[in-house]
Amino acid sequence: MSRKMSGAGFDVVYITSIKDSKEAIYTAIEDGFGRADILLITGGNGPTKDDITKNTLCDYFNDQLVFDNEVLKNIEALFKDRNIALNELTRNQAFVPERSTVIQNKVGTAPVLWFEKNGKILISMPGVPLEMRWAMKEEVIPRLTKMFQTKKFLKHVFYTQGISESALAMHLNDFEEQLPNGFGLAYLPGGGIIRLRLSVKGDEYVAEMEKQADKLKVLLGEYLLAESEDPLQQLLGNTLKDKGMTISLAESCSGGYLSHLLTSTPGASDYFKGGVVSYANSAKMNLLNVKQATLDNHGAVSHQVVEEMAKGAIEAFATDCAIAVSGIAGPDGGTVQKPVGTVWICTICKDSVVSKKYMFGKSRENNIRRSAVMALVQMLRCMQ
Amino acid sequence: MSRKMSGAGFDVVYITSIKDSKEAIYTAIEDGFGRADILLITGGNGPTKDDITKNTLCDYFNDQLVFDNEVLKNIEALFKDRNIALNELTRNQAFVPERSTVIQNKVGTAPVLWFEKNGKILISMPGVPLEMRWAMKEEVIPRLTKMFQTKKFLKHVFYTQGISESALAMHLNDFEEQLPNGFGLAYLPGGGIIRLRLSVKGDEYVAEMEKQADKLKVLLGEYLLAESEDPLQQLLGNTLKDKGMTISLAESCSGGYLSHLLTSTPGASDYFKGGVVSYANSAKMNLLNVKQATLDNHGAVSHQVVEEMAKGAIEAFATDCAIAVSGIAGPDGGTVQKPVGTVWICTICKDSVVSKKYMFGKSRENNIRRSAVMALVQMLRCMQ
Repeated sequence: MSRKMSGAGFDVVYITSIKDSKEAIYTAIEDGFGRADILLITGGNGPTKDDITKNTLCDYFNDQLVFDNEVLKNIEALFKDRNIALNELTRNQAFVPERSTVIQNKVGTAPVLWFEKNGKILISMPGVPLEMRWAMKEEVIPRLTKMFQTKKFLKHVFYTQGISESALAMHLNDFEEQLPNGFGLAYLPGGGIIRLRLSVKGDEYVAEMEKQADKLKVLLGEYLLAESEDPLQQLLGNTLKDKGMTISLAESCSGGYLSHLLTSTPGASDYFKGGVVSYANSAKMNLLNVKQATLDNHGAVSHQVVEEMAKGAIEAFATDCAIAVSGIAGPDGGTVQKPVGTVWICTICKDSVVSKKYMFGKSRENNIRRSAVMALVQMLRCMQ
Repeated sequence: MSRKMSGAGFDVVYITSIKDSKEAIYTAIEDGFGRADILLITGGNGPTKDDITKNTLCDYFNDQLVFDNEVLKNIEALFKDRNIALNELTRNQAFVPERSTVIQNKVGTAPVLWFEKNGKILISMPGVPLEMRWAMKEEVIPRLTKMFQTKKFLKHVFYTQGISESALAMHLNDFEEQLPNGFGLAYLPGGGIIRLRLSVKGDEYVAEMEKQADKLKVLLGEYLLAESEDPLQQLLGNTLKDKGMTISLAESCSGGYLSHLLTSTPGASDYFKGGVVSYANSAKMNLLNVKQATLDNHGAVSHQVVEEMAKGAIEAFATDCAIAVSGIAGPDGGTVQKPVGTVWICTICKDSVVSKKYMFGKSRENNIRRSAVMALVQMLRCMQ
């Protein structure tokens, strides 16, 4: 909600999470109205006893619940689609505060409720993330941007790689010092890379923003991986599509997470043919044609094995490119020579074969995530 | 943080997210101290200009920054491990408020800072999730539980499946009505299943809790999938380990997400041998031995194909069990007969083969997630 509101030019001043208690809801509304003109709330609108938002809002606004046939029709249509019977608790979702503006929920049973009081607005949305996101995109943002004049939020987002956060900050110190008033530079580290967000509010800064962004790009030099707000997997997907190339994967320690990232982008089947999660050594041999001798001589986490895995994937899936990942995610399996966090990644793009060793950390969750992120980075670099 | 604090018996009354501004931090501390005895904060402790928490806390508590050699030693040790050079900005992390208690961060550069004022406590933790979680587990919770007498938080968590939230709520209405004072029942729906959390605070309720939990179990009957707080993938992992069985996967629309879930559990290599993400039909044929005729006659999203995929996985990975998933994740690829959200899942456990068709929704993200969750549920049912 915060991201969408900021993107639409609204100034998000506070985010609060509270208990499902009448008192907590009352206090949060009072505090919220004290701070801002618009209060967006989500959750507590389900059909069960622990869902008290609707009744509490009704009390707060001195309103009463009335039955709304339009809401019932909407629920009935939804249930028909899902082929389930409507029961009394779900039917109760059609009781709404009489003086609120009711917005039909096209993807769930709890409607969006819109209240106005002393020039302030409160909008209550369902708590199911999918439904909340739908409401924000289709109803809340369009209606609010019609009512309020907002200043445009201008931003440029850059992926940087190969430099630590503090070294990058020292490198950019003079650039930050000379930034005009109102401009901000945020460091967003994660998964071993750092995203930089240069931002300012107001259409009048469009030209200055371009100037500053260009200056920053020059300064970033070889550390600049890409300028984009899209996730890395989508960047890779677009690059593959642009070049008319296909890709396959051979994953060991990343355990399918890289495959999951690539396939979370709609239309991934245009360039992604498939992957093998070869957790057992036998799977590396049977499905990816890794040689027994290579495993025996170098171990599963090695330059040689990861390269055979990538070549095996290219052969098995008949693709132009492939990524192979093999490492020790932990918590067990580490040795003195190859401690937990040791990961080999091989990327192949046609004739170019690159294999690199990474040393991540002790956390399994992080090692899986960083393996996948660095695999995407290495593949993007390999294609540049 | 909230989950860990609740689990340790503390009453979490408010969660707030604010901007990196001095004013916002001041107001949030004042408000927080007005509501509670303990204030946990996280973030804004990095080495860059947008990190202002430490300086703001120093101002708020009328303190001054002093150089702490112990912090420097800790950072140096960390950097030696990671094989990177220490620069001035990182060295600045060793400046800490003079009167705060400094707790060394064993997994990052920003130390945990502990302040006390008028009997209230403020603990500032790093914003990197991994570091925050480490600090909560290893330092904050152990120290706080030594200082405060808390009431034990008793809970039983049940996975239910095969019934909608509202139908379940109607089914459990009388049970909820008769629950003794202080007991709560929360409905936690997600991914097509509903978790139920029965809870109460205080050791004196141990016996009554058992009684109520037993009563609930009987009422849930066939809808009860398992009693556990562990994620479903861990439940399946434990079941496989207990039975000494192995598993492999054949994923199409779930795109590796199921594999990712299974391998996120430490020790998964004991029972998980591997999987194939067969996005392209050619991959289904070449790696899983699905017949061209089966694809031609029934389509990739069918009873027949998903069964051949599962059998192919069992053969390729030589496992006792297998799960195969094939469906239309969307947004494209749907037809009138097989709209977006149609998913076939086949689970095999030795001689038992179960194939089921599911109709999820229009959201790609949700279809991927629900495919994986229902695959885990179906496999658990198949093994029962």
